[in-house]
Amino acid sequence: MMGETKRPLILVTNDDGISAKGIHALVEAVRPFGEVLVVAPDKPQSGMGHAISVHNILRLKKSTIFEGIEAYSCSGTPVDCVKLAIYEILKDRQPDLLVSGINHGDNSSTNVLYSGTMSAAVEGALENIPAIGFSLQDFASDADFTASKYVVEKVVQKSLNNEFPPHVCLNVNIPKGTVDALKGIKICRQARAFWRDSFDKRLDQFGNPYYWLTGEFENFDGGEDTDIFALNNGYASIVPTQFDMTAYHVMSDFNNWKL
Amino acid sequence: MMGETKRPLILVTNDDGISAKGIHALVEAVRPFGEVLVVAPDKPQSGMGHAISVHNILRLKKSTIFEGIEAYSCSGTPVDCVKLAIYEILKDRQPDLLVSGINHGDNSSTNVLYSGTMSAAVEGALENIPAIGFSLQDFASDADFTASKYVVEKVVQKSLNNEFPPHVCLNVNIPKGTVDALKGIKICRQARAFWRDSFDKRLDQFGNPYYWLTGEFENFDGGEDTDIFALNNGYASIVPTQFDMTAYHVMSDFNNWKL
Repeated sequence: MMGETKRPLILVTNDDGISAKGIHALVEAVRPFGEVLVVAPDKPQSGMGHAISVHNILRLKKSTIFEGIEAYSCSGTPVDCVKLAIYEILKDRQPDLLVSGINHGDNSSTNVLYSGTMSAAVEGALENIPAIGFSLQDFASDADFTASKYVVEKVVQKSLNNEFPPHVCLNVNIPKGTVDALKGIKICRQARAFWRDSFDKRLDQFGNPYYWLTGEFENFDGGEDTDIFALNNGYASIVPTQFDMTAYHVMSDFNNWKL
Repeated sequence: MMGETKRPLILVTNDDGISAKGIHALVEAVRPFGEVLVVAPDKPQSGMGHAISVHNILRLKKSTIFEGIEAYSCSGTPVDCVKLAIYEILKDRQPDLLVSGINHGDNSSTNVLYSGTMSAAVEGALENIPAIGFSLQDFASDADFTASKYVVEKVVQKSLNNEFPPHVCLNVNIPKGTVDALKGIKICRQARAFWRDSFDKRLDQFGNPYYWLTGEFENFDGGEDTDIFALNNGYASIVPTQFDMTAYHVMSDFNNWKL
């Protein structure tokens, strides 16, 4: 599909949808580094985690939203976008790098599980494509991505110039603020935290109840080597991320159950 | 919501939907062990991974589908069901055990990422509720759950009688076949495998293309301690599963990048 060239092929996706400001900032940041292909959802897909479309059909449409860049919008999830890019659009050529984002909102800690942005990157890791998810700690649709672009450029350059470990991706989170305010970039571990949810119960026009999911993110991790700690102290955080969820530390506990 | 009692409170959910045969087999298997609350999707939610509803409202309806058991159907994903159960239905009482399934189809290896069944269990682990996802290697809607029920009873009994490690859940997969054919139950690690996808491209009634996601699951893990190996050899597999996706083994590699 793509022309023959020695420039790295960079696959771009996100979960806020192809018209979000964040993916446009990401495309601008990565286009100097190689040939860019965009395959992104046609609508917001936040919180879709690693969902794939098994009961629904997928639509794929050429998009002219990025000048001079091959782009497609897809009716499915971020992971669907990655699969369609690899197995339907590219077929014979593997991307040299997959970047996802820049997400409008934080994906640190256990948000990696809920995040469509990061699930697209994890799907890249499954395919053994170097993959990076970028997220800015700002949910605003008009968020300022200047500091994010600086981090993207730095991380992408290093990713293309160094050996990227196999079957790993990066979860990069950038604190809200200016480039000058950014204290640096830290390699971190995923903080132990979870959502203490609550539901906003309302009545529809017929008097029937419905709910909005809401909640507070609660950090129960006192470590100073976590992504949350880095972000709270003005650093961008990078968590090297993998997909083996085996709880090796408790294998023997369960073996003792004599099942 | 639930009556005062000393019997364990068992929360049941799934991803195939509240009317699937698998969740009915699961409810029958666990009801002798305690008080049961069912909160399950009102429609199939396979492949939803850890998705949550952030852009859509949630509906929750009382269901009488299980005789003598408090049950609700929910318009959302399996993880939404767990969140609604904990924060909206139960509120002051924490379930003693969360069981999810019995899934119509295998969730071994990296399918843990795509599986709504297992994401519900992982959500339980986040909430520090002992949680178990059960899946049968048979996609048929009329699958035979006899061997699965045997495994469920054994694993649930041991889970209630032993100390369940914190922030961990179990990914239990049962091979297709009779109880007699089952060779045993093995504690395993998650096999390294991935989906080599392909897309079935078709034309709709207007001549516009659409796609169905399909593919082959490819195991690139030769280990004899994996869930896939256990299942292929007639054993039920149990992978203790946790949600820290940090790639600790490559932290120093990335530190050497001097970002």
